[in-house]
Amino acid sequence: MSDERPDPGTVRPGGRTAKTREAVLRAAGDALAEDGFDRLDLAEIARRAGVGKTTAYRRWGTVPGLVADLLTEMAAESLPRTETGTLLGDLTAQARLVQSTLSDPRQGPLFKALITAAACDAQTADALHRFYRTRTDEWAPCVTAAIERGEVPAGTDPHEVIRAVSAPLYYRLLVDGGPIDQPTADRAARAAHTAAKAGAFTS
Amino acid sequence: MSDERPDPGTVRPGGRTAKTREAVLRAAGDALAEDGFDRLDLAEIARRAGVGKTTAYRRWGTVPGLVADLLTEMAAESLPRTETGTLLGDLTAQARLVQSTLSDPRQGPLFKALITAAACDAQTADALHRFYRTRTDEWAPCVTAAIERGEVPAGTDPHEVIRAVSAPLYYRLLVDGGPIDQPTADRAARAAHTAAKAGAFTS
Repeated sequence: MSDERPDPGTVRPGGRTAKTREAVLRAAGDALAEDGFDRLDLAEIARRAGVGKTTAYRRWGTVPGLVADLLTEMAAESLPRTETGTLLGDLTAQARLVQSTLSDPRQGPLFKALITAAACDAQTADALHRFYRTRTDEWAPCVTAAIERGEVPAGTDPHEVIRAVSAPLYYRLLVDGGPIDQPTADRAARAAHTAAKAGAFTS
Repeated sequence: MSDERPDPGTVRPGGRTAKTREAVLRAAGDALAEDGFDRLDLAEIARRAGVGKTTAYRRWGTVPGLVADLLTEMAAESLPRTETGTLLGDLTAQARLVQSTLSDPRQGPLFKALITAAACDAQTADALHRFYRTRTDEWAPCVTAAIERGEVPAGTDPHEVIRAVSAPLYYRLLVDGGPIDQPTADRAARAAHTAAKAGAFTS
């Protein structure tokens, strides 16, 4: 990374650089949600954000660089997990959060565009995988707590349980086009919970 | 559909038209697997297939038209389900078929490119959803048979069980980049089987 592109962590919060970044990432998210990734253009995003084209090119370099930074920001800003006291309650909360995100008129197309962009570019794929690692790490402790309470067997892989809850919802978004509704979310949570209790996710 | 683009079902098998179609679909699959969908070009595919550009444009019109026809062919040519006599055996066979397809050096990138193309184009999305409906319809009878044997509760939705087996493997391919290996396949089958037996997929 060149000296001219500050690491996100070093940006003074609320400063001019931070405001520029916020405006450009917002415009990038809007463009992705509205037009998909295949029509993404760095100069057009800078224009929408009211930021100089040169600034955008100097800071992000390329569209994949910008999309990677958007994913970093999304990981930092994403919601903390819900703690309900039972594993089924926690997994249902996780499933409903994924469901409401993927069925949201802005967020659904945005996630589809980000995943599509990752399929076409290695840098974006790395950033996407880091984003999902962050989200899985956030929710995994609900399974660890369930192991400690004796709700699921020792040796259960927390990350596998969390992925099992999300997978059917992403499958509908990306693969078979089925409805991403609350019954689907609740069924995904119930299926993962039942399988976890029976030891299907022990390694 | 115009008179100039024969419906696939009306093409004489082994005839010149069928051979042209086979060559062009093969070239389209190769190009998708090698370069991804975002660099797909109808004239270049015709060239690779040794077919006149005019013929390709007349027959398929656009890249999405060609990709839709490829998906129709893939649905027609796809493997029949395996019958093992137990639901866990059948679901494991299904999971391993999906796993070996998605981890294959040609098929994995091809499916990723097809799903990516569908995210960017409505005609391709329709064809993709039809392809997965065909595949789910092919495997669903193994759940119906398990209901009849009393292995899983009456009212279990066969299609939901089949989708639950595939979803974790597609999640790895498209979303989190985890390994698409046999333990993942077997775990997906075991989790879906356990959840189905406990009634998690009854509607």
